Amino acid sequence: MKKVTAFAPATVANVSCGFDILGFAIDELGDQVTVMRSDSPGLKVTAISGDGGKLPYEAERNTCSVAIQAMLDQLGIAQGMEIILEKGLPLGSGMGSSAASAAAALVAANALLNEPFTKKELVPFAMEAERVACGAAHADNVAPSILGGFVLIRDYQPLDLVKLPVPAGLHCTLLHPHLELNTSDSRSVLRKQISLKDSTIQSGNIAGLISGLFLSDFQLISRSLRDVVAEPSRALLIPGFYELRENIKAIGALGSGISGSGPTIFVLSPDKEIAIMAGKVSEDVFGKIGLGLDVYISEINNNGAYLKEEKI
Amino acid sequence: MKKVTAFAPATVANVSCGFDILGFAIDELGDQVTVMRSDSPGLKVTAISGDGGKLPYEAERNTCSVAIQAMLDQLGIAQGMEIILEKGLPLGSGMGSSAASAAAALVAANALLNEPFTKKELVPFAMEAERVACGAAHADNVAPSILGGFVLIRDYQPLDLVKLPVPAGLHCTLLHPHLELNTSDSRSVLRKQISLKDSTIQSGNIAGLISGLFLSDFQLISRSLRDVVAEPSRALLIPGFYELRENIKAIGALGSGISGSGPTIFVLSPDKEIAIMAGKVSEDVFGKIGLGLDVYISEINNNGAYLKEEKI
Repeated sequence: MKKVTAFAPATVANVSCGFDILGFAIDELGDQVTVMRSDSPGLKVTAISGDGGKLPYEAERNTCSVAIQAMLDQLGIAQGMEIILEKGLPLGSGMGSSAASAAAALVAANALLNEPFTKKELVPFAMEAERVACGAAHADNVAPSILGGFVLIRDYQPLDLVKLPVPAGLHCTLLHPHLELNTSDSRSVLRKQISLKDSTIQSGNIAGLISGLFLSDFQLISRSLRDVVAEPSRALLIPGFYELRENIKAIGALGSGISGSGPTIFVLSPDKEIAIMAGKVSEDVFGKIGLGLDVYISEINNNGAYLKEEKI
Repeated sequence: MKKVTAFAPATVANVSCGFDILGFAIDELGDQVTVMRSDSPGLKVTAISGDGGKLPYEAERNTCSVAIQAMLDQLGIAQGMEIILEKGLPLGSGMGSSAASAAAALVAANALLNEPFTKKELVPFAMEAERVACGAAHADNVAPSILGGFVLIRDYQPLDLVKLPVPAGLHCTLLHPHLELNTSDSRSVLRKQISLKDSTIQSGNIAGLISGLFLSDFQLISRSLRDVVAEPSRALLIPGFYELRENIKAIGALGSGISGSGPTIFVLSPDKEIAIMAGKVSEDVFGKIGLGLDVYISEINNNGAYLKEEKI
C-alpha cells in the first residue's frame, strides 16, 4: 500500500454521569486523513483543509503526526510519510475534534503498514496526540472515535477499555451553539472536592446508565442521565442549558448533557423522529437567546474509524 | 391461609465500589419468620430464638413487626398477627441481619394476605424496619434479601431498583471475624468530602463492575472490585484486611471487600473450589492475629426470600 485514506467520527465525552470515563461516537460527522509513503525520512503534514488556518503543520504539534510518530516509535521503525488532513469537525467545540484527526491518521497509517496493530492497540498512540493537543492524555474521545459505540474507560493505569452495547434506535442530537468556551475555563470551574453524598449519587447514576445500555432500557437510561459532579458548574457557562433540558424531555427525549467540556450539548433520543424534534426545540431555545446553532442528528456509530480508500 | 413460614437470606451491602448503592444475597444463611393470623388485634412477637436474648419483643421496635405494620398501614387494614422469629444470622455483623428478619416477615405476611404485593413492592416496607433498626431507611440489604441476586439501588427519590445478572459460577466466601465493630464508629470514620479524582475512580470501577456482571467477565469484575471512598477508612478497623486481600487474590479469587459496615468481609470467586480455598487462606490470616473466624461459602442467591411452609 502506498496511499490510504481513513475517516474517524466526532465523539461525545463526559457523557453526563460518565464524567471523564464514558464516551460515544457519532455517524458521518468527522475528520478524514490521507497518509502516503514517502522516500524522504520523517512525517510531513502537507495539507490541512477545513480548519480556517488554525491548525499547526509542525509534526511535533499536529495531532495526526504526533499519533503516527507514537506508533512508529513503538514499532521501532522510521518510515517516512506525508499526511493530508481534511477537517470536518469544528475546532474546540467539545466534539472530539483533535481526537478524530489522530484516530483517522492512525487507522490510515496502520493500514499503510499492513496492520501491525488491532484497533484497540491504536488507542494509546492517539492518547499521545491528546496530550499534545489538550495537555492530558485522555482516552474518552479517542477510544470511541477509533472503536465506535459507547466506550467505558475504567482505568488508565493500565488502560482498561470496555466496549458497551448500543440499544437499537438510540439517536443523538448534537447541538453546537455559536459560543466561545475556553477548555481551561471549563476545567477551572470544576470543584476539586465532592461531597460523599454527591459521589454516591454519581455512582448510582453511572451504574444505572451502564445497566440501561445493557438492558436496552430507555427509561432507565433517561433516569440515569444526571451529572451532579461537573455539570452544575459548567452549565452556568452555557446560556439556555436548563431550559433546553426541560423542553427536550417534554417531547420524549431521554436527556441531555454537555459534550466534552462544551459548548456542544448532546441530546439522546429513543428514535430518529424525536432526535429531529429535539433539534427544532433547541433552535427555538437558542434563537430566543440570540445564539446561532448547528444541529447534527445521528445514530450512535458502532464501528468507529474506518478505511475509505487504499491505493497500491 | 392461617400460618406461613418464610426464609430470607443474608446479604452483602456496600459491595466495594458499590458503596451505598449495591448489594447481593447469599444462599442458606438467613433468618426464618413464621406469621399466624390472630383474632386479637395488633402485631405480637411471641418468640425469638437464636439472638442470645438481644432483640426486642415490642412491636414498635422489632424489625419483623415494624415491616409488617408498614404493609398493613398501606393496605389500610388491621389484621392481628403473631410472629415467631428464628435468627440464623449473627447480629451486627454486617451480613444484613435486621434486613433478613424484615424480609422474611414481609414475604410470610404477604402470603398470609394472599399476596396483595409483588416482591419488589415489599421493599419500601422493609426499609421502614431498617429505619428503626439502623436509623436510616437503607435498601441495599433489604432489596437483595427480598429479590435475590445483585440489586442496584440507583436512587431513593423515588426508589429505583435494578436487578442485575449473576454470572454462572460466581461464589462468595463470607468471613466473620470475632471482632466487635460499632456501626456508628464505622460510619463516623467516613470522609464527608471526596476528591474529584477519587469520585471519578469510583465511578469507573462501579461502571466496570456492572459491565462485568452483564458480560460474565470475571477478570473485569476482579479489576473493578476496588473502593477508594469508604474502604480506606474502614479497613483500618479490621486487622488483617489487606493481608487477606493479597492472599485470596494469589489463589485466584476475584477480590474482597467489607460487607455492610463490617466487620464481616466478603470474597468473590469464579468457582466453588477457589471460594473454599479463600476460606482456608483467611483462617490462616486471622489465626496468626489470634482472632476467631466463621466462614460461610455460598453461591449468589438469585431468588431471595421464599416461602417454606404454608398451613391452611
